[in-house]
Amino acid sequence: MQHIAEPFELAPQLQQDCFVVGYLPLCQVLLLNDANFTWVVLVPRIAGATEIFQLSDSHQSMLLQESSVIARMIAEHFPCDKLNIAALGNIVSQLHIHHIARRRDDLCWPGVVWGYGQGRAYQTHEKNTLLQTLQNLLSHSPGFCSAPVDSCADE
Amino acid sequence: MQHIAEPFELAPQLQQDCFVVGYLPLCQVLLLNDANFTWVVLVPRIAGATEIFQLSDSHQSMLLQESSVIARMIAEHFPCDKLNIAALGNIVSQLHIHHIARRRDDLCWPGVVWGYGQGRAYQTHEKNTLLQTLQNLLSHSPGFCSAPVDSCADE
Repeated sequence: MQHIAEPFELAPQLQQDCFVVGYLPLCQVLLLNDANFTWVVLVPRIAGATEIFQLSDSHQSMLLQESSVIARMIAEHFPCDKLNIAALGNIVSQLHIHHIARRRDDLCWPGVVWGYGQGRAYQTHEKNTLLQTLQNLLSHSPGFCSAPVDSCADE
Repeated sequence: MQHIAEPFELAPQLQQDCFVVGYLPLCQVLLLNDANFTWVVLVPRIAGATEIFQLSDSHQSMLLQESSVIARMIAEHFPCDKLNIAALGNIVSQLHIHHIARRRDDLCWPGVVWGYGQGRAYQTHEKNTLLQTLQNLLSHSPGFCSAPVDSCADE
């Protein structure tokens, strides 16, 4: 599976708020640092993109496919009554798509998670365990690579 | 363009909160009755669907295509600094995808629109004009039909 290999830099705010899970052919896969929710963010590695419709048809298809991989993984392997999937970008305009496991007993059900207040940062061991779990689950997805894309391309 | 012709009923809450703009091959196109935002909702006419990944690959592709038609239309023809696109469903579980034109000077920028408070219902003439505008814009999209699907299928 061919990875996107264009120059791309993750927005500083996403670098600050998230841990890198790995790389699917189009998207960087991030875990948001809020232990209150299982919250995965996909970022298409297309410089300058802010809206899904700006992507080429083929990149849109890749995004859809990768989004469904993440959604299915969350729904099948984490406590989840409903997924919330959203491309917002009011604060960080770089195109990124939230995938959040929602539970009827979570902090802000049935409200949305954006703006609910301060998140709870992961403990280091929690974060490491969860990243490992996510990487293991995604290792079955075509083209997934936990190392940076350059290393993937060498494989 | 072949329309989905399976038995399908729009969720009562969506019937109550929205006006029908028309029908794309997969989705019913709705206008949310909140004059504070240009807010279009797509509902795939697949009974029982609550998550995008539950749709068949071909229905997912149709959804993506129709979502991008709506997103592009909003971005090009309405005041819009950023689109917010989201599949939430915490309250109405029937799969539906929000497409909202956000402006830096709107009521809740940069926050999200869900839960911001009471919307402002359209005046009848505003609603009729806007529905007509949306129908005219969508009339160029393959398979769009402003009448119910049965009538489209007869065309």
